[in-house]
Amino acid sequence: GDNIVLSLTRIDQIRHIDRANNTVTVDAGCILQNVQDAASGVNLLYPLSLGAEGSCTIGGTLSTNAGGTSVLRYGNARDLCLGLEVVTAEGEIWDGLKGLRKDNSGYDLRDLFIGSEGTLGIITGAVLKLFPKPAAQVVAFVATPSPEDAMHLFEKARARFDTALTGFELMSDICLNLVLKHHPGARSPMSTPSPWYLLIEFTDLHSEDKCRAGIQSLLQDGLESALISDAVIAESIAQSKALWALRESISVSQGAEGKAIKHDIAVPISTIAAFINDAQAAVAAAYPNVRPITFGHLGDGNLHFNFSSAPGDDQATFFALQTPINRIVHDIVRSYGGTISAEHGLGVLRRDEAHAYRSAVEKRMMAAIKAAFDPVGIMNPEKLLG
Amino acid sequence: GDNIVLSLTRIDQIRHIDRANNTVTVDAGCILQNVQDAASGVNLLYPLSLGAEGSCTIGGTLSTNAGGTSVLRYGNARDLCLGLEVVTAEGEIWDGLKGLRKDNSGYDLRDLFIGSEGTLGIITGAVLKLFPKPAAQVVAFVATPSPEDAMHLFEKARARFDTALTGFELMSDICLNLVLKHHPGARSPMSTPSPWYLLIEFTDLHSEDKCRAGIQSLLQDGLESALISDAVIAESIAQSKALWALRESISVSQGAEGKAIKHDIAVPISTIAAFINDAQAAVAAAYPNVRPITFGHLGDGNLHFNFSSAPGDDQATFFALQTPINRIVHDIVRSYGGTISAEHGLGVLRRDEAHAYRSAVEKRMMAAIKAAFDPVGIMNPEKLLG
Repeated sequence: GDNIVLSLTRIDQIRHIDRANNTVTVDAGCILQNVQDAASGVNLLYPLSLGAEGSCTIGGTLSTNAGGTSVLRYGNARDLCLGLEVVTAEGEIWDGLKGLRKDNSGYDLRDLFIGSEGTLGIITGAVLKLFPKPAAQVVAFVATPSPEDAMHLFEKARARFDTALTGFELMSDICLNLVLKHHPGARSPMSTPSPWYLLIEFTDLHSEDKCRAGIQSLLQDGLESALISDAVIAESIAQSKALWALRESISVSQGAEGKAIKHDIAVPISTIAAFINDAQAAVAAAYPNVRPITFGHLGDGNLHFNFSSAPGDDQATFFALQTPINRIVHDIVRSYGGTISAEHGLGVLRRDEAHAYRSAVEKRMMAAIKAAFDPVGIMNPEKLLG
Repeated sequence: GDNIVLSLTRIDQIRHIDRANNTVTVDAGCILQNVQDAASGVNLLYPLSLGAEGSCTIGGTLSTNAGGTSVLRYGNARDLCLGLEVVTAEGEIWDGLKGLRKDNSGYDLRDLFIGSEGTLGIITGAVLKLFPKPAAQVVAFVATPSPEDAMHLFEKARARFDTALTGFELMSDICLNLVLKHHPGARSPMSTPSPWYLLIEFTDLHSEDKCRAGIQSLLQDGLESALISDAVIAESIAQSKALWALRESISVSQGAEGKAIKHDIAVPISTIAAFINDAQAAVAAAYPNVRPITFGHLGDGNLHFNFSSAPGDDQATFFALQTPINRIVHDIVRSYGGTISAEHGLGVLRRDEAHAYRSAVEKRMMAAIKAAFDPVGIMNPEKLLG
């Protein structure tokens, strides 16, 4: 209809920044980084941050409920959205572009569209939350003997620093070595290797000294209680960025190494160490040559629990293991009360697996929602439910 | 079925606290205060807090998406819930009791049940988020000339203190006087009256000194820029509680005064002063004798925008104005992009008004959801949609 054409004539514009309301209203076609920049231009923060931020759209982040590196402090795309504009399967526009912190006036349509991967309607606009822009961020890179130790350090950090703790990322030594191999400029921050590392980020609204004091006190405690064995603290923004780059280069480095069998799982944070131990052992028992590439957002209970072949192994033979390895990993995820899609969504790749793990009652409820919103099946067919 | 009976045999138990995951799993029948106490017992915080916390159940807070006095920092009941257990209209149990920070594996059933007022299913259990328990809370009571000034002070406070600012409540002098009249023990914290007051709360994980320093710096700035005219800072926990009691006694005091015409509205925070001015003027123009009882959670954009009769006026005559006054107030709410139910839900009282303000497409979507989940209309009939 005419309304849809109107909407399509401006699909990548910042519509309105309301500074006193701490919100920005945007077209869904806006690139995430442009929204970050627009917020920054008025000294505010749109905190969603992920590797693809230079190319992904706000509509994409909402339809997949994207996560990324700031979820620990600010939540995922769902938590950052106050209102939506959506084109329905009937071609009507739903104007739910409310910029309200509280609204209890009916069913939560907003959260139903968020994360539905375009299968219930097409998001064309959104009202997003903005936040005060922190003045200081300081990153530490830490060697830790095991995921258990990492988890205990996280517990201490969260209890003591709460919202000042903005990043808590885990990676194995295998991951770090892949990055060093495929990024010639990259250097290990550690003088001696450790089986596991953490990237920890502290943020403060005003004071870099406070960030440093917080990090130093945590690391001191971690060293004394043997939860960590070594640590470096970035001395500059450039050093902080270089440490983040190590973490953010893992996925590309794994790709450069060959085929990748990938998982995007979450479990309760309290079980993340047990999960890593169990799932790595189970895959190693079945396929001893396969290399675990374990990294992710420990503070969110979310791991990219990936696998590569042994160096030099035939890639087609290795990649044929995708289905059985998925099954091993995802069965263990399920036994821990976890999810097989934490921040990436289902699409086609995870659709049938997710369906298989669902209870009958959950299958019926999801099918009923799809039928209610898209009775003839024209909205992103084959995705999410199939 | 058998499963339902099992569930009903333990309806008010704390099922499990997972300290490392910062979650508690509870029966829906748990009293809110018991959950707060259980969290506190392990040195954690379940932050939802409202006047009825000694009697309301967790199921009630979730089915109405309750708000209260900690939304500014911690969000409402929806934001504090990770997973649900629900009995459907078919009598089946949906086990969605996940304790995950991230889960993108299908439609967001959790948020559909939250706030649906029991019309889609009955919540029987929940996984709730817990937080580090702050060591210090300090409250200030402040005189401010106008809602505009209050709003500008809020902007400064939020930009400068972010999550350390945990309460920002507005009340008119009329509200304070009602409390002083009906609560003989209550005393005004101010030496001279002001048309408006704010209750501002700062919280710190570790240090009361930091709270005091934050409050003092904000109040100093507010006095210098004439956004406030007077202020007192509580010297003790008892004094903080006494100041909160003034705020929390308004609703009961209004009831003691006679009939109350009540509204639970939210608008974008940036428009809250303009809304108060417009809506008070419009009601005064139509009914000059009616007294505005304006108070609420300014930091959330949520006001309890109530009215009482003039002292001594006939209560039946006054209360007959409920429908036309609702209409005046809610039409203005709508013109500001607001909601007529911010934290109380629709029930029967606001059901038809909410329906009348909805767009046709929104009506169809909500009716489709109800039909999909409760085709024969047995779940809390007449509520929310009717």
